[in-house]
Amino acid sequence: MLHRIINLTVRDVRFPTSLDQHGSDAMHTDPDYSAAYVVINTDGGLKGFGLTFTLGKGTEIVLCAVEALSGLVVGKTLHEIVSDFRGFYRLLTSDSQMRWLGPEKGVIHLATAAVLNAVWDLWARAESKPLWKLLVDMDPKQVVSCIDFRYITDVLTEEEALDMLVKAQEGKQQREDQMLREGYPAYTTSCAWIGYSDQQLRQLCTDSLKSGWTKFKVKVGADLEDDIRRCRLIRQIIGPNNTLMIDANQRWDVAEAISWVSSLAEFKPLWIEEPTSPDDILGHAAISKCHNRVMFKQFLQASALQFVQIDSCRLGSVNENLAVLLMAHKFQVPVCPHAGGVGLCELVQHLILFDYISVSADLSSRMCEYVDHLHEHFISPVVIRDTHYMPPKEPGYSCEMLESSVQRHQYPEGDVWKLHTNK
Amino acid sequence: MLHRIINLTVRDVRFPTSLDQHGSDAMHTDPDYSAAYVVINTDGGLKGFGLTFTLGKGTEIVLCAVEALSGLVVGKTLHEIVSDFRGFYRLLTSDSQMRWLGPEKGVIHLATAAVLNAVWDLWARAESKPLWKLLVDMDPKQVVSCIDFRYITDVLTEEEALDMLVKAQEGKQQREDQMLREGYPAYTTSCAWIGYSDQQLRQLCTDSLKSGWTKFKVKVGADLEDDIRRCRLIRQIIGPNNTLMIDANQRWDVAEAISWVSSLAEFKPLWIEEPTSPDDILGHAAISKCHNRVMFKQFLQASALQFVQIDSCRLGSVNENLAVLLMAHKFQVPVCPHAGGVGLCELVQHLILFDYISVSADLSSRMCEYVDHLHEHFISPVVIRDTHYMPPKEPGYSCEMLESSVQRHQYPEGDVWKLHTNK
Repeated sequence: MLHRIINLTVRDVRFPTSLDQHGSDAMHTDPDYSAAYVVINTDGGLKGFGLTFTLGKGTEIVLCAVEALSGLVVGKTLHEIVSDFRGFYRLLTSDSQMRWLGPEKGVIHLATAAVLNAVWDLWARAESKPLWKLLVDMDPKQVVSCIDFRYITDVLTEEEALDMLVKAQEGKQQREDQMLREGYPAYTTSCAWIGYSDQQLRQLCTDSLKSGWTKFKVKVGADLEDDIRRCRLIRQIIGPNNTLMIDANQRWDVAEAISWVSSLAEFKPLWIEEPTSPDDILGHAAISKCHNRVMFKQFLQASALQFVQIDSCRLGSVNENLAVLLMAHKFQVPVCPHAGGVGLCELVQHLILFDYISVSADLSSRMCEYVDHLHEHFISPVVIRDTHYMPPKEPGYSCEMLESSVQRHQYPEGDVWKLHTNK
Repeated sequence: MLHRIINLTVRDVRFPTSLDQHGSDAMHTDPDYSAAYVVINTDGGLKGFGLTFTLGKGTEIVLCAVEALSGLVVGKTLHEIVSDFRGFYRLLTSDSQMRWLGPEKGVIHLATAAVLNAVWDLWARAESKPLWKLLVDMDPKQVVSCIDFRYITDVLTEEEALDMLVKAQEGKQQREDQMLREGYPAYTTSCAWIGYSDQQLRQLCTDSLKSGWTKFKVKVGADLEDDIRRCRLIRQIIGPNNTLMIDANQRWDVAEAISWVSSLAEFKPLWIEEPTSPDDILGHAAISKCHNRVMFKQFLQASALQFVQIDSCRLGSVNENLAVLLMAHKFQVPVCPHAGGVGLCELVQHLILFDYISVSADLSSRMCEYVDHLHEHFISPVVIRDTHYMPPKEPGYSCEMLESSVQRHQYPEGDVWKLHTNK
C-alpha cells in the first residue's frame, strides 16, 4: 500500500480559554488556546492528523500558510515521502519562493509543523505503532535520514548523529520496559497561571500535592510585588524540598531580568524560563523555547541554556526535534519539553520517550511539562499515572481530535463561538 | 486635520521576473518579485501607501496577516498613532494572541512592515515632506519616541539614543545640502544574477562601467567552478581598483562557507553576504540581513558583521530601522542597505539619507545597493545620477505604485498572470 495523499484539509479550532484566564502569563494576558488542525486523506482510506498550537487571533494566517504548503504534499505517496524524508523536509522549508517568508520561523514554520505532524501520524498509523515506538524501532540510519543537517554541521554531522544512536542501542529494551511500567516524569503548570487568584492558586497547589505532584511551574514577570507574594505562597504550600520553576514568557530586557530574578532567588527556582526575547542568545543566562535547530545550536554553543525545552509545534515536527535531541545529548544538557496548549502534551510525550529510550538513556534533571487542560477533546488523551506520562499504545501521534469538538469549536462558525458572538 | 483611517486594503502584486532569471541566486532559483501592497484611506481623503517585498508563492499568506493586523489600525487617527508611535508599534508587534505567530519575525513581521510603511507614508504626506526630510527635521526626542527599546536596552538605552541624535545635529544642514547636490553613493547588483549567462554578465558589466558604476555585487554559492569563472570574468572586466562584493544567499554550512570563500579570496571581495543561516550569529564571520533589532543587536555585540545591511521591509518599518541605525552608529559599523526587489530602493533611500544627515555623518565604506528593475511601476521612482541616489522630493515614502501596474500584475486575476496561466 503506497498511501497516496489525495487531499489535505485544515481547520481553525479555538477554545475560549481566556474567559477563565487559563494559560495567562505576563505577555499573553488573554490567550484563547487554539490550533490549526490538519487532516490528510489517502487513497486507501488511511488518515493522518496533525496540528500546530496558536493563541487565537491570527490562526487563520497559519491556515493560509498550510494551504500554500499543501500543494507540495498532495499527490505524493507516504512511501515517496519517507524514503527521502530529509528531501521532503527541505522541499517544504526551502521552496525557492516561499522560504523568503521565514526561513524556518514564524507562521510558515508553524504551518510546516502542522503538515509534517500529520505526515508522521500517517506513517505511524500505516505501521500500526504509536509514534514513539515507530522511532524507537527504526534503524539508526533511517532516523538520521529524516534530519536536515543544513546549518548545523559545525556542531553535529550525520556521522556523529549515527554514531550516537548506534551507541545508545545498548540497554534500549530495558528502558522501553521501564517506560511502559513507570512512565516518564512530569511537572505541572496548571496551578499558577498569572490571572489566577491567590485562593485559586492555593487550592490548586494543595490538590496537586495530594495527587502526588512534586514539581511546579509559576508564571511571573508582570508585577514584582505580585510575583514575590505568589512565589512565597506556593513555596509555603509545597515546602522546601519540592521543585519550583518560574516562567517570564519574554517579558524582560536583559538587565531587568537579572534584577527581577535576584529578587525571586530566595524562592530557589530550578530554572527561569524565557526571561527575554527568544532571539537573544547572548542576552540569556538561561533560556527555553527556540524556533529552529539553528537557534538551539547556538544556545548550546554559547552555554546560554541549562535546559532544552523542545516544542512539538514550534519546530519543524519530528524531523527537526530529532536534530535538537541529538545536539542536546552531545552537549549533555537535559531535555525538559514544553507542553500544554492544545495537544502539545499528546505530541511531545512521543519525542521524550524516544529521547530516553534511544538517545540520552538518562532521567536525571529531566521532566516533561504537563498542563491539565483540553485533553478531553482528543481521541487518545495523555495518560498521567503518579505524575508520570504513560506511553501511548494506540497507533499514531495522538493528536486526532474528537470530530464533535472540532465542529463545536471551529472559528467563527462553531456553536461555542456563535454563543460568544451573540453575547 | 486628524486623518482618521477609515479602511486599509491590501493586494497581491507579482511580477514574473523568474522568466528572465532576474533576481536569481543560489537559494532562490526562480523568484517572481512580488509585494503585499497596502493602501490606507483616511476620512479627509489623504492616502498612505506601503508594501512589503516577497518572492511570489505565499504572498497571499502575508495578505492574510495584513488583514489580521488591520483591525488594530482602522479607526485610529494619524494624530493618535504618531503621538505614541512606540505604543502603536508595540500594539502591532505584541498583541497578546498574535505575537505567538512571531514574535517579530517571518510572515507577521513582513505584514507589520507593510502596514507601518503605509502609516509612515501617510505621515510624510500629511506633513508634505518626503519621508527622509520628515525624519531629518524631527526633534530628536520625537525620533526616539518612535523606537521600541524592548530587548535592546543592554546595548542602547533611550537616553543614549537621544544623546547621539543631539550630538549629530552639528553640521546637519551642510550634510543635507551635500545630499541634495551629490546624492548618496550606490553599488549595483543588476549585472550578475546567478541565472545570467557569461555573455549577459560581460555585456551588463561593460555597460555599467561605461555608466560610471565602480562597485558590483555577484551572486555565488551554487557551484564553485561556476563562481570562480564568473568572479574571474567580472574582475577582468572591472579591473583591480573597482569594488566587488559576493552574496551566497544562505547557501552554505559554516565550514563550507569558510572553504568556499577561501577559494574566491583571490578575487578580493569586499564582503561576503549571507554565507549561512540568517539565524546563525555564532557561525558568522561576516553577515547581512537580520529579521529584527534583537538579531542585529547580537550580531553587533559578537562582532559577527562588518557591514549592517538594513532592510526596509524585513524589519518593522522605519521604527525598527531607526533602532538599528543607532546601534550601528554606537558600534561604528558602516550601514550598507539591502535594496532591489520591488520598491526596496524607493523605500530604503529615505533611511540611508536620514542616517547620513542625522546619525552617522559619515560616508566612508558606505554605499546603498541598487538594482535596475521594476522602477517603472512606481509613481516616483528612484533617481540615480552618476551612480548616486538623488534625494526624493515628493511627499511620502515613495512606494506608491501606478494603479495600472498594480491591476495588470495582481495575482492571479491581473492580465499578466491570465496570460501566463493560459500558456
